[in-house]
Amino acid sequence: MPNDPVTPQLLAAARGDSPPSRILANARIVNVFTGEIEAADLALYGTRIAAVAPRLSSTEAERIDLKDAFAAPGLIDAHMHVESTMLPPTGFASLALPHATTAAVFDPHEIANVLGLPGIQWLMDNATHAPFTALWAASSCVPSCHLETNGCILTADDLAPLFDDDRVVALAEMMNFPGVVHADPEVLKKVNMGLARRIVDGHCPGLTGRALQAYVASGVSSDHEATTADEAREKLRLGMQVFIREGSAARNLEALLPLVMEFPHALSRFCFCTDDRHPADLREQGHIDNIIRKAVALGLDPVRAITIGSLNTARHYRQRDLGAIAPGYRADLFVFDDLNNIQPRLVYRHGEPVARDGQYLGPTPPVAGYPKSPVRLPSDLSADSFAVRAPGGARVRVIGMDPHQLITEHLIEDAKIVGGLAVADPSRDILKIAVIERHHATGNIGLGFVKGFKFKGGALASTVGHDAHNLAVVGDNDADMLAAARALHDAGGSGGSGGGGGGGGGGQCVVAGGKVLALLPLPIAGLMSDQPAQTVIDQQAKVLRATQSLGCPHHDPFMPLSFMPLPVIPKLKLSDKGLVDVEKFEIVPLIV
Amino acid sequence: MPNDPVTPQLLAAARGDSPPSRILANARIVNVFTGEIEAADLALYGTRIAAVAPRLSSTEAERIDLKDAFAAPGLIDAHMHVESTMLPPTGFASLALPHATTAAVFDPHEIANVLGLPGIQWLMDNATHAPFTALWAASSCVPSCHLETNGCILTADDLAPLFDDDRVVALAEMMNFPGVVHADPEVLKKVNMGLARRIVDGHCPGLTGRALQAYVASGVSSDHEATTADEAREKLRLGMQVFIREGSAARNLEALLPLVMEFPHALSRFCFCTDDRHPADLREQGHIDNIIRKAVALGLDPVRAITIGSLNTARHYRQRDLGAIAPGYRADLFVFDDLNNIQPRLVYRHGEPVARDGQYLGPTPPVAGYPKSPVRLPSDLSADSFAVRAPGGARVRVIGMDPHQLITEHLIEDAKIVGGLAVADPSRDILKIAVIERHHATGNIGLGFVKGFKFKGGALASTVGHDAHNLAVVGDNDADMLAAARALHDAGGSGGSGGGGGGGGGGQCVVAGGKVLALLPLPIAGLMSDQPAQTVIDQQAKVLRATQSLGCPHHDPFMPLSFMPLPVIPKLKLSDKGLVDVEKFEIVPLIV
Repeated sequence: MPNDPVTPQLLAAARGDSPPSRILANARIVNVFTGEIEAADLALYGTRIAAVAPRLSSTEAERIDLKDAFAAPGLIDAHMHVESTMLPPTGFASLALPHATTAAVFDPHEIANVLGLPGIQWLMDNATHAPFTALWAASSCVPSCHLETNGCILTADDLAPLFDDDRVVALAEMMNFPGVVHADPEVLKKVNMGLARRIVDGHCPGLTGRALQAYVASGVSSDHEATTADEAREKLRLGMQVFIREGSAARNLEALLPLVMEFPHALSRFCFCTDDRHPADLREQGHIDNIIRKAVALGLDPVRAITIGSLNTARHYRQRDLGAIAPGYRADLFVFDDLNNIQPRLVYRHGEPVARDGQYLGPTPPVAGYPKSPVRLPSDLSADSFAVRAPGGARVRVIGMDPHQLITEHLIEDAKIVGGLAVADPSRDILKIAVIERHHATGNIGLGFVKGFKFKGGALASTVGHDAHNLAVVGDNDADMLAAARALHDAGGSGGSGGGGGGGGGGQCVVAGGKVLALLPLPIAGLMSDQPAQTVIDQQAKVLRATQSLGCPHHDPFMPLSFMPLPVIPKLKLSDKGLVDVEKFEIVPLIV
Repeated sequence: MPNDPVTPQLLAAARGDSPPSRILANARIVNVFTGEIEAADLALYGTRIAAVAPRLSSTEAERIDLKDAFAAPGLIDAHMHVESTMLPPTGFASLALPHATTAAVFDPHEIANVLGLPGIQWLMDNATHAPFTALWAASSCVPSCHLETNGCILTADDLAPLFDDDRVVALAEMMNFPGVVHADPEVLKKVNMGLARRIVDGHCPGLTGRALQAYVASGVSSDHEATTADEAREKLRLGMQVFIREGSAARNLEALLPLVMEFPHALSRFCFCTDDRHPADLREQGHIDNIIRKAVALGLDPVRAITIGSLNTARHYRQRDLGAIAPGYRADLFVFDDLNNIQPRLVYRHGEPVARDGQYLGPTPPVAGYPKSPVRLPSDLSADSFAVRAPGGARVRVIGMDPHQLITEHLIEDAKIVGGLAVADPSRDILKIAVIERHHATGNIGLGFVKGFKFKGGALASTVGHDAHNLAVVGDNDADMLAAARALHDAGGSGGSGGGGGGGGGGQCVVAGGKVLALLPLPIAGLMSDQPAQTVIDQQAKVLRATQSLGCPHHDPFMPLSFMPLPVIPKLKLSDKGLVDVEKFEIVPLIV
């Protein structure tokens, strides 16, 4: 479909020699090429726009009078992990299309870490059942690095066949930036394959100076990890495409938008992405449209904002027929009434209406046939598995968590010692955290402490734990941590996940006093639900309310919890192999 | 070479862990990404830039102190026919590199019309012997259309193997715009192949309205034929990349530059090209640098002008490592002193100095091994072959030639009748013109009249005659026209062309009173010389002085003469098949 040939019928409709399928009359069209608003009619033919011209008419075409409403190209997310929506692409599309996102570049590295290529292939197949343009980036770092144990390893040779598929538009975010900078042979092999076949996207939080220059010299073309204007400015000057990320976890728009204003010369060099977006946020706040509204509220010209959210991303990924309203482009567009508060009220994708007034109009096929991925816990897992032996007066490393950033602090704190064990101390907001390997039942358990969750009397557990997606559990007592881990192991077996595939266990849960307060089953790789989007939103709301009942003040503590294991984002993280000092890129002892 | 892999050595030099090859110190770098001027040093390693950073030093690297001079990325011609320089790529490079052009997209459709794929392949091979980045566009219209007889036909299937070569970056200008608009199957086959493999460049002079929309709907992505701001604005709004052409024949900068000012939003959507450029103009006035100087003189910000002449073209052709000064990019750059009068004084290409103070520093290998292409005239060619029989009072079509435009006027004039023949009438500036098929000795001769050459007492002839490159001759008497045609036939046999290949005859000459006043031999396909650039410039100067001796007031009447046969540029043209009404796209009678 990405490269289906141009047909004589489209050209006849463009000339006006044969009728279009539909006419959208009296539009004020956002021209992302010139920055103008043009009053014109639109003729659609099949999946494409045939003509943009005044006073089109045809007795044979459906005619929709837009009554001077604005029409803009469908929005494109430049980089996201659909798995973070806890929905497969069909479910994601049902939430994103009402917000005018008609295409996205998915890096399927979450499912790849659990299930490898069969997982990617299932996800790509699922996406074909939605009226949505799913573009794919071949996941470059599965596992993220050698400091964690994941489900499957993808080598350069494993990835190569993906590039035979037109829908694959890039090598995905090369997160192993130390591997690039220091020219690890397997990493360079992947980069060179990406450059030869497509483009290579980047991921280099905080990288600067000569190390950043080496990263850029490798041909990596983009970054979505900058959190300050200074960081993004350095990357922009080196020619990186700057993806401004505003997701559910990391929110960088406010910090980076001043750059867009500072460099009108560089308008084409920005894109918008969400990286990770939760289903409730998608539904309630929106997606790329939400970023655009915020950017406009912060002072960006709305036409420039739309250009960044559409054409720029299409061009970065070399998609000739996405991101604009013009003849030959896909008829992916949305209608809205107010440039200063862009609320999509009618959305077309490939020439067909797919959302109206916030309601998805497309099909919701059952989610089925996904590969199995049981949660494999150590056979001897017990409360004692979570014990941290420590001498009196010990000092321990503590992960300093900020719920609004992926980056953590590397803290050293006095341990609270009880009976020769270092234990949680909720009075100082120091909780215990564990990451249990769940793919191969190796028995690996990483243990540590974390500051920032601010709850007590229970535990939260999740099989979403970037990027290896081992089972992460945080709590103030070992018994509840054990119970939470077991609840996720049993989630698949309980039948609670329902639905077609019966893939396995996993999910997110809240436990207090040995009792499961709430459970969100995620049977697809322990990452995604097979239920309709609204069911997932309701289940997640119940889980979040349960975290509040433990006194947790954060909107969604599972988001930071799911990033605690990620050993490629500074500074201190916890994998199944132990605490990772990301700046030194090595395992470090808990007790210092 | 275009996709040679990134090496660990480059990354080590980028990090500063191993020495670069060269350091260019104290540069003011034109940053085409941000629009800034940055004070920094440059580290080069091999063919690439390793780092852009302040205060670089290395005891092992050559150090060149630029003393605060400006450094900008090497310039790129977005579309040109190297054959129009009358030099093969090696000779062209020797003239273009001193003007900071380090790369160009060559459409080899001139040689292709004479020699087909072997001609293209010889040209591509020749280019590998110059320190120049030759990118290629697969010639889409050979012949330009069915209204002329050329040497070779290239079908979609013939072109397909070219796309296996990394150096081929596009399907070249799709000049058969009526074929696209009306969905000719073979034309669409070529377009669809171009879209599937690379991008498709366009060529649609004067096309507007729904026909233009159909042309754009086909996926054609650019145009370099707009001559007015209104024409270019319509194309820009439809998403076409606007190539602003300023060559030796067609000069559109002054007309189109206001658009660049009008649409700062669209900065990335303009490129510069020359299309056709003569060797003396190259040497004396320059190339893309000349366009940039003119644009700056007309009010364009110099950094924006450089961006259009470098990065924009690299991005249009998806060249990730051309068009900017940044780590990993090719070390193609030039040094100059004054932003308001950009005169390249030192040029690097792939890390090596290739020109200094206007002097080319690279190799000048002998030009050899080109395929033979004898000029095959009708065996019975005589002065009578040029006779136009006409009744008294006849009116004839006359091509209205403007030496500064490719477009001609379609005039109707009273014929001057002498002895039953319509003859030239220099008193009214009406000369006779003939186009003689030269590839297959078919005997085809097209005859017509032309207004605008303004000479008398002789004839000019040329085997450069776009695009079929039949022999075009203009004069005021049949005897001199015959003598001029014979002189070009004999040019190869005379040995006057000298040099390696001994390919054949052809060239350009001036005849008066039966005597050859001057001859420029072009033995490579009748289009290019095998002599050094300076020899060709001298020979051409002699030919042009000879035209002046006939009273011709134009700087170079061979330029308009060579475009008289081109039946895809409106309005009235002459091919070997006869007069072509380009707007009707059909052969029309001379006598009306």
